[in-house]
Amino acid sequence: MRAYGGIEAGGSKWEFAIGSGPDDVRAAETIPTSTPRETLDRAIGFFQREGPVDAVGIGSFGPVDRKSSSPTWGQITTTPKPGWAHTDVGQEVRRRLSVPVAFDTDVNAAALGEHRWGAGRRLETFCYITVGTGIGGGGLAGGNLLHGLLHPEFGHMRIPHDRELDPFAGVCPYHGDCWEGLASGRAIEARWGRPAEELEGKPAVWELEARYLALGLVCVICVLSPERIILGGGVMRCDGLLPLVRREVLALLNGYLDSSVVRDGLADYITLPALGPRAGVLGAIALAEALGRSERAA
Amino acid sequence: MRAYGGIEAGGSKWEFAIGSGPDDVRAAETIPTSTPRETLDRAIGFFQREGPVDAVGIGSFGPVDRKSSSPTWGQITTTPKPGWAHTDVGQEVRRRLSVPVAFDTDVNAAALGEHRWGAGRRLETFCYITVGTGIGGGGLAGGNLLHGLLHPEFGHMRIPHDRELDPFAGVCPYHGDCWEGLASGRAIEARWGRPAEELEGKPAVWELEARYLALGLVCVICVLSPERIILGGGVMRCDGLLPLVRREVLALLNGYLDSSVVRDGLADYITLPALGPRAGVLGAIALAEALGRSERAA
Repeated sequence: MRAYGGIEAGGSKWEFAIGSGPDDVRAAETIPTSTPRETLDRAIGFFQREGPVDAVGIGSFGPVDRKSSSPTWGQITTTPKPGWAHTDVGQEVRRRLSVPVAFDTDVNAAALGEHRWGAGRRLETFCYITVGTGIGGGGLAGGNLLHGLLHPEFGHMRIPHDRELDPFAGVCPYHGDCWEGLASGRAIEARWGRPAEELEGKPAVWELEARYLALGLVCVICVLSPERIILGGGVMRCDGLLPLVRREVLALLNGYLDSSVVRDGLADYITLPALGPRAGVLGAIALAEALGRSERAA
Repeated sequence: MRAYGGIEAGGSKWEFAIGSGPDDVRAAETIPTSTPRETLDRAIGFFQREGPVDAVGIGSFGPVDRKSSSPTWGQITTTPKPGWAHTDVGQEVRRRLSVPVAFDTDVNAAALGEHRWGAGRRLETFCYITVGTGIGGGGLAGGNLLHGLLHPEFGHMRIPHDRELDPFAGVCPYHGDCWEGLASGRAIEARWGRPAEELEGKPAVWELEARYLALGLVCVICVLSPERIILGGGVMRCDGLLPLVRREVLALLNGYLDSSVVRDGLADYITLPALGPRAGVLGAIALAEALGRSERAA
């Protein structure tokens, strides 16, 4: 069986794995994200030590350049993360490991992983949204990963913000109170003074969070008409949040969508990732696998 | 050359055409939308009189059922338009004309027309949005029309609404102040007491309208990452609106998207349909043509 390498390149940690799917992970490691130099050296060292691999897939925090014709393909581009703007990841991994490399956003990778082995199986159009430190979204439409001009940036949608109810200004350095600015883990911590996981059992926190998440999800539903929405990321693991989100989405749709998924209360429509926190790194393996398939077909 | 029939089934008028593209329209007619019975009889009469045609494409106001496996394929489903809910269009046209019929939303049809002959040529991912009596959106992602669970319903996104600046409650019967509720032609007329075309030269009208349109467009950009946005519909033909919309979108993005289209001030990114008001009916012809292609390939 072929061995693929996966890298989930996150803003706070990087995960590496070698294998061919969730039941065949032959090696795995997680490291904290430090400088680009050190982080990349440790990634490459992992595959040199644990490999060889036939191809590597990278799902990265963004924005990224994933246009294969671009001279800066494989870069993390205009990220506000200190020291990381315009960091080449894909080209360096490809050069130093001498294997084909697939490069996409972390959320597109996770969507592909869920499509291959998880909650997106047999679906052609669905999305994967992570609600963690930030908010990001990716997905498939008509069976293809969402790309387009750049790639989706779900977190930067503008959503209604009632400043009387919630005077918090938002944490996005570009937009203040965009979706990520109001509803990400960073926003929760800044608004309430404590991180999300220390706020369990505070209904006001989660009612507001569910409302904001639902407002963004309704936009996603209206634009993409996904067959399912998979919600990953640390904030979504907070107890009781998911049912509140479903309830708020139903209230906002207000009967407009005539679909059995709505009549079922969205229980099967808005779900957690079947691959859990491994969706990203397994998705990176799926990216590598898909690249191998397309290269053998060519 | 093959002869395709196109029907743009709108809430206020239906357009019919026979031909193979914008330079080959052999017959065309526009009628006001009346009852389903009379309107369908006139549509079928047109093709019986002016045909024969090899296939018919229908781009319809919605919501519609376009799942080919569904027993109610070809219906306009839960529309609030009086007398039109659950009206079969596609199956009746297919039965009475005995030709293959392609059935989709009016905006997906228009997107396909622009893809085939207009402002969407050579693009794989873009959207077509109509701002008329209502607001609707469709498009292509990765070269395929956007479908998914049902079909896109851009008009029902929730956007920020500052009720101090604009106390108007919105006109959407389901959502009040969703995008369509605040920024459609119907909303303009209800807010200002006169239809859009009689409000030219009133800056307050168009500043507010551009702001609302831009808020929705930013959501579309964040979810779909389109390579271009084509804005059709009667409201968009109001003098001076398009540059205001571009300016507001730029302001809202606030430098976040690192793309040459943004650096060019969006002049080539947010555009009117190259096919003008014929985008819908020509798009319906493109739907019929695509159906013919896929049936010959099968």
